[in-house]
Amino acid sequence: MERNYHTQMEAARMGMITPEMEKVAEKEHYPVEKIKAWLAEGQMVIPANRLHASLDPNGVGRMLRTKINVNLGVSRDCKDYDIEMQKVLSAVNMGAEAIMDLSSHGNTEPFRKKLTSECPAMIGTVPVYDAVIHYQRDLATLTARDFIDVVRLHAENGVDFVTLHCGINKKTISDIKSGKRKMNIVSRGGSLVFAWMSMTGEENPFYEYFDEILEICREYDVTISLGDACRPGCLADATDGVQIGELLRLGELTKRAWAKDVQVMIEGPGHVPMDQIAANMKLEETICQGAPFYVLGPLVTDIAPGYDHITAAIGGAIAAMNGASFLCYVTPAEHLALPNLEDVRQGIVASKIAAHAADIAKGLPGARDQDDRMADARRKLDWEEQWKYALDPETAKKIRDSRLPEDDHSDTCSMCGKFCAVRSMNKALAGEMIDIL
Amino acid sequence: MERNYHTQMEAARMGMITPEMEKVAEKEHYPVEKIKAWLAEGQMVIPANRLHASLDPNGVGRMLRTKINVNLGVSRDCKDYDIEMQKVLSAVNMGAEAIMDLSSHGNTEPFRKKLTSECPAMIGTVPVYDAVIHYQRDLATLTARDFIDVVRLHAENGVDFVTLHCGINKKTISDIKSGKRKMNIVSRGGSLVFAWMSMTGEENPFYEYFDEILEICREYDVTISLGDACRPGCLADATDGVQIGELLRLGELTKRAWAKDVQVMIEGPGHVPMDQIAANMKLEETICQGAPFYVLGPLVTDIAPGYDHITAAIGGAIAAMNGASFLCYVTPAEHLALPNLEDVRQGIVASKIAAHAADIAKGLPGARDQDDRMADARRKLDWEEQWKYALDPETAKKIRDSRLPEDDHSDTCSMCGKFCAVRSMNKALAGEMIDIL
Repeated sequence: MERNYHTQMEAARMGMITPEMEKVAEKEHYPVEKIKAWLAEGQMVIPANRLHASLDPNGVGRMLRTKINVNLGVSRDCKDYDIEMQKVLSAVNMGAEAIMDLSSHGNTEPFRKKLTSECPAMIGTVPVYDAVIHYQRDLATLTARDFIDVVRLHAENGVDFVTLHCGINKKTISDIKSGKRKMNIVSRGGSLVFAWMSMTGEENPFYEYFDEILEICREYDVTISLGDACRPGCLADATDGVQIGELLRLGELTKRAWAKDVQVMIEGPGHVPMDQIAANMKLEETICQGAPFYVLGPLVTDIAPGYDHITAAIGGAIAAMNGASFLCYVTPAEHLALPNLEDVRQGIVASKIAAHAADIAKGLPGARDQDDRMADARRKLDWEEQWKYALDPETAKKIRDSRLPEDDHSDTCSMCGKFCAVRSMNKALAGEMIDIL
Repeated sequence: MERNYHTQMEAARMGMITPEMEKVAEKEHYPVEKIKAWLAEGQMVIPANRLHASLDPNGVGRMLRTKINVNLGVSRDCKDYDIEMQKVLSAVNMGAEAIMDLSSHGNTEPFRKKLTSECPAMIGTVPVYDAVIHYQRDLATLTARDFIDVVRLHAENGVDFVTLHCGINKKTISDIKSGKRKMNIVSRGGSLVFAWMSMTGEENPFYEYFDEILEICREYDVTISLGDACRPGCLADATDGVQIGELLRLGELTKRAWAKDVQVMIEGPGHVPMDQIAANMKLEETICQGAPFYVLGPLVTDIAPGYDHITAAIGGAIAAMNGASFLCYVTPAEHLALPNLEDVRQGIVASKIAAHAADIAKGLPGARDQDDRMADARRKLDWEEQWKYALDPETAKKIRDSRLPEDDHSDTCSMCGKFCAVRSMNKALAGEMIDIL
């Protein structure tokens, strides 16, 4: 398709309405002119590589529905591309708007291309992971040029957004080395950049060649997700100088990207005590001039391995209510193992709950409609209707059916049986006698 | 044991230090004089029936560690008292500070007495449930006197706190009947009181005979948990006139109880959008003069049956951070079925996460210690240490062990394998080369 603009941002700035803007406007119940204005100002992004033909575009921004991302990809411990593709499709079915392909084993390019030719969700990657795999050479032997070439390869493969850890520099290295933090760096990509810089003594290639990266991203309309290499890996490190120092650099890089019409998101923490989350959201908004905030968690405690989808749902809901636009899912296997299919499901549902609860709290138009319909179905004790509005009807139905009430009160469930408040109220309001025994 | 005071509150007001105050002071790291002052002012309670010999007492109040309650009890659909006792003991082992015995089938008194003679957790009940079962007569045939006699029976059985739905009155009946709400009343006890009032035309017995109830509670030191019959059962009903009208009455009843030295907690919502939670906590604090707030949820969306332990963890964490003292657990089976053992576990862990995250956010002394130790263990990749500080070590260990990394990197887990950021950082900081391939 011939098009006379590079990026959605450039189109918006030229006053053009793209098909992607129209789709997003329709989905979000906003006039397309508003979408255009927000895009032009960088207040929202539509990650949409011009080569990702199968994309069903979505917007990411604080005034829009909160989106969720699912991390997948093959690795040394899970090599099967077909299984991974199944996970992708099931994630999209369950409502994930984005898939990050974090593959770190084997021949990664065919899978990446399969994703951008078949998957309707936006596709993100972290090129620095892939660099080691792509060249099949260990980290220390790679050159800055090698890294940039992998960014270009991903852009050519149709990837919609790339995480680039541009904010870590020699000052970060010395801060970390001086032992300022309990958990140092817990970002995989960030640790690779740190290690490469330590081993080679060179400056961060993603920072040094940022202008060249901007040219690539402008050409294909790849949204840059500015990675937070220094996100806190434990509560003790949250909102510290290292984290905020990096955020300041990301704020500067945001301006440089916008000057080239390149779309930008900012990645955020991490492990953060609940009382610091709102401040973190506000800080990102002011320092990065309203660029959409993409958060991993935040996890509100460090002591719940096996349940980090819950600690992340708490933090993610608070974050989204306070301005985060995009939640990266966290599964029960976080900190412990590669997630299996059931973990992926648990992680997605937990993130969807957080996102949805925040959309309601933000008062987005229509956000509560499904809840209101569920309430009506509950009042009527209409179980078929309840499944219709449930986030995961299959699981809900399975729980009820596994333990039905023993007596013939098929209108209730075994939780309360004849003590069901809804049943009692319906009878009382109809003037009927209540039989409980 | 001879004692020259009736309730913990009376003792505090007389300037006495009780053994219970001393234990709570030690657990909470406060001087006992502070505990005494808060008790005297009703800002905290120590639910401790003088006949509950096996009790390991705990305080409930906004300045203390957030406590959690687990609902159990036999019912028509789960009749086995031994299984229920197993659930109780496992709940206490997992850290529940309170058990509410909601038994609604068979001969309930022996189980209740077993609980107060063997269980170290505080025991709560809802006498109105038991009334129907105890007399084996249907609701409409019971008299006000019957209800009050059951309250006395529970006090004599050693119960530490009772939920009484005193705040619902004829005005509530007419508000509900006029169709002001989507979900009417979803409190089981509240619906029974409503139905009884509707069928008999009489005033709420728990309101009408409140002075007599106070005498009973004073005699045994039973803490009154003023029930919220009108808690919202869906987001649409949250913080409405019916709910707040009841809260105003609970505020008046609190003063009457305090005048007789009877300890009081207030029960709270329910289903509440996230943006309304802080306001609900503040409102309870002002209207009920700081009496501890005991919340069920709040659930922040209605559309997640099967996952309501997560919707409740989000709401509970925000509630506790904003002043709630006591969280009633919610299990994945909420709205669907009686919880099984695994549901109970999931519900307890989710509530503990919410409570703990809130304690950290409130800056309670030492609240973050365990998290800091976990972070140290993670940095050292010391897995045995990590299990030591995990909320549910068994589950965490099981997840990691089920999917160990294939290569010989036993220091990492299969989530990242050789890409592990912690491993890379430890090597980089030690000046070692990073091998990833």
